[in-house]
Amino acid sequence: MNKWYIEKGTEGDVVLSTRIRFARNLDDYPFPSKLDKKGKSEICALVRDALTGDGDSGFGYIDMNTLTPSQAVSLAERHLISPEFTTEREGRALLLTEDESVSIMVCEEDHIRLQVMKSGLSLNEAFDIADKIDNVLDSKLCYAFDERIGYLTQCPTNLGTAMRASVMLHLPALTATGKISGIASTVSKLGLTIRGAYGEGSSARGCIYQMSNRITLGITEQAALDNLSAITLQIAAQERAAQSLLLRNPAEEDKVFRAAGILKNARLLSGDEFMELISLVRMGTARGVFDFPLEKINELIVNMQPATINAAHGKNLEPSERDAIRAKGVREVLEIRC
Amino acid sequence: MNKWYIEKGTEGDVVLSTRIRFARNLDDYPFPSKLDKKGKSEICALVRDALTGDGDSGFGYIDMNTLTPSQAVSLAERHLISPEFTTEREGRALLLTEDESVSIMVCEEDHIRLQVMKSGLSLNEAFDIADKIDNVLDSKLCYAFDERIGYLTQCPTNLGTAMRASVMLHLPALTATGKISGIASTVSKLGLTIRGAYGEGSSARGCIYQMSNRITLGITEQAALDNLSAITLQIAAQERAAQSLLLRNPAEEDKVFRAAGILKNARLLSGDEFMELISLVRMGTARGVFDFPLEKINELIVNMQPATINAAHGKNLEPSERDAIRAKGVREVLEIRC
Repeated sequence: MNKWYIEKGTEGDVVLSTRIRFARNLDDYPFPSKLDKKGKSEICALVRDALTGDGDSGFGYIDMNTLTPSQAVSLAERHLISPEFTTEREGRALLLTEDESVSIMVCEEDHIRLQVMKSGLSLNEAFDIADKIDNVLDSKLCYAFDERIGYLTQCPTNLGTAMRASVMLHLPALTATGKISGIASTVSKLGLTIRGAYGEGSSARGCIYQMSNRITLGITEQAALDNLSAITLQIAAQERAAQSLLLRNPAEEDKVFRAAGILKNARLLSGDEFMELISLVRMGTARGVFDFPLEKINELIVNMQPATINAAHGKNLEPSERDAIRAKGVREVLEIRC
Repeated sequence: MNKWYIEKGTEGDVVLSTRIRFARNLDDYPFPSKLDKKGKSEICALVRDALTGDGDSGFGYIDMNTLTPSQAVSLAERHLISPEFTTEREGRALLLTEDESVSIMVCEEDHIRLQVMKSGLSLNEAFDIADKIDNVLDSKLCYAFDERIGYLTQCPTNLGTAMRASVMLHLPALTATGKISGIASTVSKLGLTIRGAYGEGSSARGCIYQMSNRITLGITEQAALDNLSAITLQIAAQERAAQSLLLRNPAEEDKVFRAAGILKNARLLSGDEFMELISLVRMGTARGVFDFPLEKINELIVNMQPATINAAHGKNLEPSERDAIRAKGVREVLEIRC
């Protein structure tokens, strides 16, 4: 089965992906930070049985403790789990569909972190899928819910809808022109946050940013989705215009072609250089400079992350070995026509 | 008719070309620096008639004064005339065969500077051609010749055979490993000089060096040629071994492939960057990393020099225009398979 990120999404030239995340907790248990090993195990079993008890649910169940560090970090690189979920794995579990579009972390910060990913800008579709799975869980488990506040969560910033909707944006031109900082401060006033691809504190490697709603209390899910969607469309339009303008500059156009030339020929590629160059090639592809499927570039960005390469090779590779494998992997995929 | 440098020469992976140059002066005239315009014109006519008087000699006659600066500098870039010959063009002429393998500067430092170029290492062949033309001139003109000393020349360092034999060497690996300076001092003790491609004081752009005999007095032409040939073969063997060793280093191999990638994709290429990258690609081609004819690379090195690009376009281009034309020209030629 193809992974979700292989598909071409709406507004896909700028919007890599959409993610909806619900935080849920069970009424009868303390929050995970106050739970012992036995309590966590009970919750893992409860959630697993609620989802998979009726036969083929489409979910696989992974006891996080059974994974190697590379396998765990690879899941985080693919945004299927949070980086925090990789470090402490005792008493934690992951439910995952085969196409990796739906993942449920059990006993992360909250008892349940349900997440749905879709290619491109697809907030309502992702929400509908999350909502359906949430209804199944709700019918079998007793959620911690307050009529006045909404869903109760360990961290007060998630109280209410307990929904975090986010889009992953590729903004090379707004980054190159320095406009991104102005945009970040504007969207902040509109209740949104822009940060690096791997969340709080992470840098925007390859000019990939994550924009998400900050407000969960006193707002409906639909209002939050509509707000995020409208602002995403505006930023995408700005990015497109900035890309077109940038590529009319011969020196910038040259950079894009050189990036393709290096990626198609290098024998060693560090992760940082790969992200820098693939970002330029992705921009060229988005604006029609190259005749190449964007989805293949998106897939490459996922597959060429360090732990994902390690996991694919079943061992912890030396950085120099990984640089050679990355360069080979990139050459095999990129047959850009220009 | 193909230019001489299109041909594949002996030892061509390291030796780009061979040049034999004879300096000759007429007995009845002062050296050029002491000649007025009328005297120079007389000599130009005498040399022209001596060579072309008997019908089709294969030589074209160019009054240097009729050339644009770009056309003149382009001749120097192709090593057909000396850089000095481009600056002061009054009363000077050039005789040139269509394949550009034989050129005769009239009223350069000496009355006659006869030069023969061949691809690869080809000292005896080039000497034979020069010798034949020299015999024709000798039979019609009265050379300044002293039985004891030999040919008389304006500069005392050329007295005797008045022959300068040189080879153009591509030595990227001996340059990269820093061995070139030791070699330069060794060959100096053996009566040879290594310097940049454009003679005294020029730098070795693209790791291209010119090695020539320094001694013209008290030595036969054949002894000078044999000495230069033997040392060239030794250096070529050293360079080959150094190249093979260098290319076994993954980081150096990576550089060679990246250079090819950039040259095949860049939209802007400065002359300096072009020389740096084509040098790496030439080394890769010489050692079989790329399946590509070396002659095409040699031709590119000639055709992508600044004044040669200007001359081909019939005008003085802005550097940025030229960088775009160079990048296009390189892309059209390089279809390296690897």
